[in-house]
Amino acid sequence: MQNFEFYGPTRVVFGKDTIKELSRLIPRDRKVLMTYGGGSIKKNGVYDQVKKALEGYDLLEFGGIEPNPKYETLSKAVEIVKNEGVNFLLAVGGGSVLDGTKFIALASKYNGDDAYDAIMKRGEMPDSAVELADVITLPATGSEMNNGGVISRISTSEKLAFHHPDVFPKFSIIDPSVTFTLPVKQTINGIVDTFVHTMEFNCTYDVNSPLQDIWAMGILRTLISEAPKVLANPEDYDARANLFWCATCGLNYWISCGVPQDWSTHMIGHELTAFYGIDHGQSLAIVEPRLLRNQKVAKSQKLAKIAREVFGINEPVDLKAADMAIDKIEEFFNSIGMKTKLSDYGIDAEEAAEKIRTRFKERNVAFGEKGAITADVAYEIVKAC
Amino acid sequence: MQNFEFYGPTRVVFGKDTIKELSRLIPRDRKVLMTYGGGSIKKNGVYDQVKKALEGYDLLEFGGIEPNPKYETLSKAVEIVKNEGVNFLLAVGGGSVLDGTKFIALASKYNGDDAYDAIMKRGEMPDSAVELADVITLPATGSEMNNGGVISRISTSEKLAFHHPDVFPKFSIIDPSVTFTLPVKQTINGIVDTFVHTMEFNCTYDVNSPLQDIWAMGILRTLISEAPKVLANPEDYDARANLFWCATCGLNYWISCGVPQDWSTHMIGHELTAFYGIDHGQSLAIVEPRLLRNQKVAKSQKLAKIAREVFGINEPVDLKAADMAIDKIEEFFNSIGMKTKLSDYGIDAEEAAEKIRTRFKERNVAFGEKGAITADVAYEIVKAC
Repeated sequence: MQNFEFYGPTRVVFGKDTIKELSRLIPRDRKVLMTYGGGSIKKNGVYDQVKKALEGYDLLEFGGIEPNPKYETLSKAVEIVKNEGVNFLLAVGGGSVLDGTKFIALASKYNGDDAYDAIMKRGEMPDSAVELADVITLPATGSEMNNGGVISRISTSEKLAFHHPDVFPKFSIIDPSVTFTLPVKQTINGIVDTFVHTMEFNCTYDVNSPLQDIWAMGILRTLISEAPKVLANPEDYDARANLFWCATCGLNYWISCGVPQDWSTHMIGHELTAFYGIDHGQSLAIVEPRLLRNQKVAKSQKLAKIAREVFGINEPVDLKAADMAIDKIEEFFNSIGMKTKLSDYGIDAEEAAEKIRTRFKERNVAFGEKGAITADVAYEIVKAC
Repeated sequence: MQNFEFYGPTRVVFGKDTIKELSRLIPRDRKVLMTYGGGSIKKNGVYDQVKKALEGYDLLEFGGIEPNPKYETLSKAVEIVKNEGVNFLLAVGGGSVLDGTKFIALASKYNGDDAYDAIMKRGEMPDSAVELADVITLPATGSEMNNGGVISRISTSEKLAFHHPDVFPKFSIIDPSVTFTLPVKQTINGIVDTFVHTMEFNCTYDVNSPLQDIWAMGILRTLISEAPKVLANPEDYDARANLFWCATCGLNYWISCGVPQDWSTHMIGHELTAFYGIDHGQSLAIVEPRLLRNQKVAKSQKLAKIAREVFGINEPVDLKAADMAIDKIEEFFNSIGMKTKLSDYGIDAEEAAEKIRTRFKERNVAFGEKGAITADVAYEIVKAC
C-alpha cells in the first residue's frame, strides 16, 4: 500500500423522505442561494420539497446551470452572490449543478478578472469558499462527497477540473426515490460514470492493497447486479438506493486510499465532450475499453483480478484474463443500452484522434499511472474508438 | 437499504514515516497535552519521534493510561487540562489511550461533580470538547476514525461506552511500521477486535445492501489473508499496513451505512473484562461464536453470505452454511493463537453467566438487532462459552 492522506468531512443524509431535513441542517441565519439546472426538479417535485423545507429562510434562486456547466453561466451566479451577500449555496440537482455551484462558491471569493483562468488553469485559489451543500438528484459524478468539479468554457472549448478543500459539501441529501423519474439515458450515463470512476481509482498496478481492491470491485459487482433491476423497474427503491450509494462511493475517495490511480479515460473523454458535445458517460464508455486494451499489459494484474472477482472468469493467465475482462466491460455497457463506438455517435475517429493529439501536445500531457498516455498514445486510443 | 446519516471528519495520514507530519497538522499556538500509556512508546521510538516533531511547542505530558482506561486515572489528566489551560490533546498509543483521551476531552469541559456518571450513564454531555488528535500505534479499536470511547470505573466494576460529535480526532497519524514490535498477543487481540467489529456492523439480517455486505466481508477476507503473514513475519510492512487499514475501516462507520447492527458480543464481552480482567479481544473471541450459534436462525442470511463469500463454502442451504461459517470463524481465531473458551482463561462459565445475567437484569437490557439478547439469553450464551 502506498502512503496516503484522506479527508472527507461531508455529512451524508441518505434515504427516503430526507429533503425535509434541510431546515435542521442549514442554520436559520444564512442567506441562501438555491442553484439548479434546466428545471427537471420542478417536474419531479424536488423543487417543491426544498422550498417547503426552507420556508422562512432568506432564499434566492439561480436556475439554468447546464450539463457540463459553463463558466459563462456560472459567472452570472457569482455576481448574485457578491451583490446580494449570499453566504450559503444549496445546489439542487445532478453533478453538473453541484460542480457548477462549487465553482461559484470559490469564484465568489476571487477578486481578479478571469476566475476561470485563475482557478482552473493557474491554480490561483482563493483562501476560502462560500459554504455549500446539496440535494443531489442524479447518481453519477460522486460530487456530493468530494471536493472537485469540472467546468467548461464555451469561448475556448475547454473542459477542466479543479479541487479545493473548502468545496466539500457541508452536507449532501440523497433521496434515491427522486431518481425514479430519471430519463433512461441519464440513468445509464450515471452507471457508466460510476463504473469508470471506480476503474480509474483502482485499475492500475498492484500495490498489495487487498481491501481497497475488494471494495472497488464491490462497486463494479453491485453496478452489474443492480443496473438491470433499475432498467426493468425504475421504481425499485432498493436497486435505486444501491446504485446511488455506488455512485457516491465511486468518488468519495474511500476506495482510493493508498492505491495508484489513472484518470486518463476521463481526460480523453472530457475532450470528446468539449469537441463534440456528447454526454460525459457516453464519452467514457467509448474511451474506456480502447484505453484498457491499449494499456492491457501495464494493467494486467488488476484487470485479471477484475476478471476473476467481478466477472467470475476462471482464467489463470493474467493477460488472457485481462482481455476477457475488457470484453466483459464493453458487453456490460452495451447490455444496459450504452453505445461504445465513436461511429455510433456520428463522429469520425481519425478526426477526433487528431484533434485530441493536437490539444494534448499543446498541453504537453502524459496521463496514466506512469505517464504512459502521451498525446501520441491518446491518438492511437481514440483512433481505435 | 435503511435510511442513514454518515459523518466522519477525521483526517487520516497513513504510511511510513508520517509522525513527522505533526508539526504541519497542529497549529503552533496550541498548548498540547500528550497522553500515553504504560511506556511502550518509549521503547519503540514513537515517543522520541513525537517529541522531535513537536519541538518548539508548549507541550505537557500525561502517561500511565492503562488498557481498559480507568475513570480514576483519567480524572487526573482532566485536572491538568483545567489547571494548565491545555487546548489540544494528542493521544499517542493504542485505542485505550485514545478512548481515554476522548473522555478527557469531554470531561475537561464538564463542570459538575461526577463526570463518569454524567457522560457515561446520564448522557449529560458538555456542549463541546477539547480539540484532540492522535498517533495511533495499535490496529484494533478503530477509535482513530470514530467518535466513541469505552471507559471503565474501578470503584463500580463498570465498563461503558460513550459517543460525542466533538471527539472525532481532528487527525490520526497511522504509521504501520510502528507495529512491527507489537507483542504477538496484542497483534492477535487487534485482529479479533477488528473481525468482531465488522461482524457487529453487518451480521444481522439482509436489508438488500450488497455493497455494504461486500465491503464488510472484504475486511474479514483481508484479515484472514493478512493475519498469518504478520504472525510469520512481524516486519512485513504491507501485511501490517493492510491489517491496520482493516482495523480503521472496521469502525469508521463506512461499512455501517444503511445496515442494521448488533453490538451484543461487545456488550457481553465488556462485562467479562470488567468482572475478570481478560483482554477485550479475548472476551470477544469467547463470546462471538456462542452468540452466533445462539442467534443462528435470525442471522442465517448474513452468516450464509459470509460462509460463501469469505470462506468459499458451497452450501446452498442457508442454515447449514451458517453453521459452517460459525465453525470457520472460531477456527480462524484459534488458528492465530486466540483461545475461545472461558475455561481456557480459568473462568467458570456458570458463574460468569450468572453474574452477567444479574448485571443485565439490573439494567433491563435487550441487545441485538431486534432486542433478542435479553439477560436470560445472555446467560445461555455465556454458559455455553
